[in-house]
Amino acid sequence: MLNVGVVGTSGRGYGLMKDVVLKLTDKVKITAVCDLYPDRVEDAQKLVEEMSGVLPFGTTDYQQLLAREDVDAVLITCAWEAHVPVAIAAMRLGKAVGTEVGGAYDIEDCWDLVKTYEETKTPFMFLENCCYGRREMMALNMAEQGVFGEVVHCTGAYGHDLRKEISFGKENRHYRLRNYTHRNCENYPTHELGPIARILHINDGNRMMKLSTAVSKAAGLHQYIKDNKSDDADLMSRTFNQGDVVTTTITCANGETIVITLDTTLPRYYCRGLSVRGTKGMYEEATDSVFLDDEHLEFEANWKEKWGNAEEYTDKYEHPVWKEYLANEMLGAHGGMDGLVLCAFFDSIIEGKPCPIDVYDAVAWMCITPLSEQSIALGGAPVAIPDFTRGKWYKHD
Amino acid sequence: MLNVGVVGTSGRGYGLMKDVVLKLTDKVKITAVCDLYPDRVEDAQKLVEEMSGVLPFGTTDYQQLLAREDVDAVLITCAWEAHVPVAIAAMRLGKAVGTEVGGAYDIEDCWDLVKTYEETKTPFMFLENCCYGRREMMALNMAEQGVFGEVVHCTGAYGHDLRKEISFGKENRHYRLRNYTHRNCENYPTHELGPIARILHINDGNRMMKLSTAVSKAAGLHQYIKDNKSDDADLMSRTFNQGDVVTTTITCANGETIVITLDTTLPRYYCRGLSVRGTKGMYEEATDSVFLDDEHLEFEANWKEKWGNAEEYTDKYEHPVWKEYLANEMLGAHGGMDGLVLCAFFDSIIEGKPCPIDVYDAVAWMCITPLSEQSIALGGAPVAIPDFTRGKWYKHD
Repeated sequence: MLNVGVVGTSGRGYGLMKDVVLKLTDKVKITAVCDLYPDRVEDAQKLVEEMSGVLPFGTTDYQQLLAREDVDAVLITCAWEAHVPVAIAAMRLGKAVGTEVGGAYDIEDCWDLVKTYEETKTPFMFLENCCYGRREMMALNMAEQGVFGEVVHCTGAYGHDLRKEISFGKENRHYRLRNYTHRNCENYPTHELGPIARILHINDGNRMMKLSTAVSKAAGLHQYIKDNKSDDADLMSRTFNQGDVVTTTITCANGETIVITLDTTLPRYYCRGLSVRGTKGMYEEATDSVFLDDEHLEFEANWKEKWGNAEEYTDKYEHPVWKEYLANEMLGAHGGMDGLVLCAFFDSIIEGKPCPIDVYDAVAWMCITPLSEQSIALGGAPVAIPDFTRGKWYKHD
Repeated sequence: MLNVGVVGTSGRGYGLMKDVVLKLTDKVKITAVCDLYPDRVEDAQKLVEEMSGVLPFGTTDYQQLLAREDVDAVLITCAWEAHVPVAIAAMRLGKAVGTEVGGAYDIEDCWDLVKTYEETKTPFMFLENCCYGRREMMALNMAEQGVFGEVVHCTGAYGHDLRKEISFGKENRHYRLRNYTHRNCENYPTHELGPIARILHINDGNRMMKLSTAVSKAAGLHQYIKDNKSDDADLMSRTFNQGDVVTTTITCANGETIVITLDTTLPRYYCRGLSVRGTKGMYEEATDSVFLDDEHLEFEANWKEKWGNAEEYTDKYEHPVWKEYLANEMLGAHGGMDGLVLCAFFDSIIEGKPCPIDVYDAVAWMCITPLSEQSIALGGAPVAIPDFTRGKWYKHD
């Protein structure tokens, strides 16, 4: 049984506890919770007590939580700005780290994470749930089986209309509001970059070499606030630095390109925009379809007829992780990709195995944020991506 | 009745004559045809004679065609490399120019076109048929009526698997083979850039300021040739410089971004990838759908249910040009967007009106090719886009 402390108990932390962690009663116990705000600490304590029968320790100071003997591992589910400091403090105290996703603020964040891990060898996992998404894993499985041929190009996006969430206003204490006010960057790259990195063998024979970022003007949030929150003087007075659509093109050592789009402040449907393009075929999330040279050339001009055909490939190509998950659903599998990523973390710690998404993966993906900010500041100039592995990315050769 | 000469009578030229021009018997007469290859000249002459009853003049020297008194206007449908020289020669002789699309080879191509037009005032039209595409025009109409709010971001693509066409081999004399062998650039930007330029008011209060281009490795053609044409020693020995997927991000004076993708040598379905993103809604070609703030928020997480819903908007937002076209179809409207763009050209000349896609539009779109080539050569560096209007782009203010 793993004793877990949770740092950050607002929306995401609270939700993960309620929907996943507190249901994994055979693996983990929540022994401590922490948030900057006392009301959130109390809510979290109540939740844990209700669901587990035991009142956990509560604090507004994460150092207090980390110092406790009854905390073996921490889940970091707080504001983006605190992910790295909390993770570093935890590793130094030997507390296994599972951190929620987000971008770095400076490249030095990434180096500090890597160096702290290398010094302490404390287990570290980046909780990129989309690496465990059903279609993402099927696409990975198909790529690994060679169905797409040589993979040449991938796209991904965080296509999620966050206007309502961001403009709840200051009293909602959401970190996105201040981030969208001040920064202008690809602030959330990892949801599709994670799965794509797997497909392109990043840190396993390949690496990302450079990027260039273009950003549109920022018009969506202000329009939304004018239409829906014109009584909120603080919101109405804000100028948002964050452009509405941020397009980052990344080039890999082995010649592949990746296009990542941040698309969160204009009306749209939710989509992670995955596409995987190879010399023999493709997968595309927007139309949930698979196009293969051997099967679909006759539909080339009328693809509409095949929209949604990815479902037909699940029998053959569903990833083993999802096959097992779906088979066990009736027996109590929890939370889809959130459940899968958290179980992968907890199982690694409990069984003393390496974490499947390690610190080198984390920083390879998180660094896109400050580098995109630099590229934007420099008018779209290409920016080099550091090799945080210092040569270990081709260690298996 | 307009007397027309056709320069370039291979696939595109032959097809346009047969399917459109020779059917417009009330507007135009083909009096002369030209191609580098005598067999193509003969085939074209035969076609014109069969369909119109009159044998046109035939030549392999375009200067001979341009010099003729019975040629008032030329259609330039030859290889990309000759579009600009033929157009300039024609304008100098006062022959109205309708030129097929393609990119420039150097920025100076663009300046020469502009300067020749400004000196001669010979009518010039860029025959970008996709500006007359049905959905492209509906999206334009919706944008002009404010349905999308303030437009912030657009995407477009030439998503067309050309592997078979390109690898017919040398004996097929197709210009794409040599272009894909030697160049590495966004070689065909105008199909969606044209419609997007209309939506973003390029040259009418807005202009494109800079671009940056990223390119994947070139793997698709070689794989295809290995699998399908391994007996063609010439093809097998070629190294293709042209990367498979070329992503160009363009930033406009008024803060909008455009992403254009060239995607022609990997398996895929045909798609021009149009999306129009505004503060109130979007149109997306891949799913042929319209998402509006006022109507679709409840479908945000399950957009599948609305795939293809653009059809529901045709009653209200079909562009007047297409409304008229569809109403007349039974009475003899020809060739969809090809027919519309050619009629727009012929009618302008016959009625002495300005051409709807003028030389400034043409060069604004064609220049993307050499500038993308420069950006790629410079590792993705941002490259400035000239103002070919020298300030006239905001003349209406």
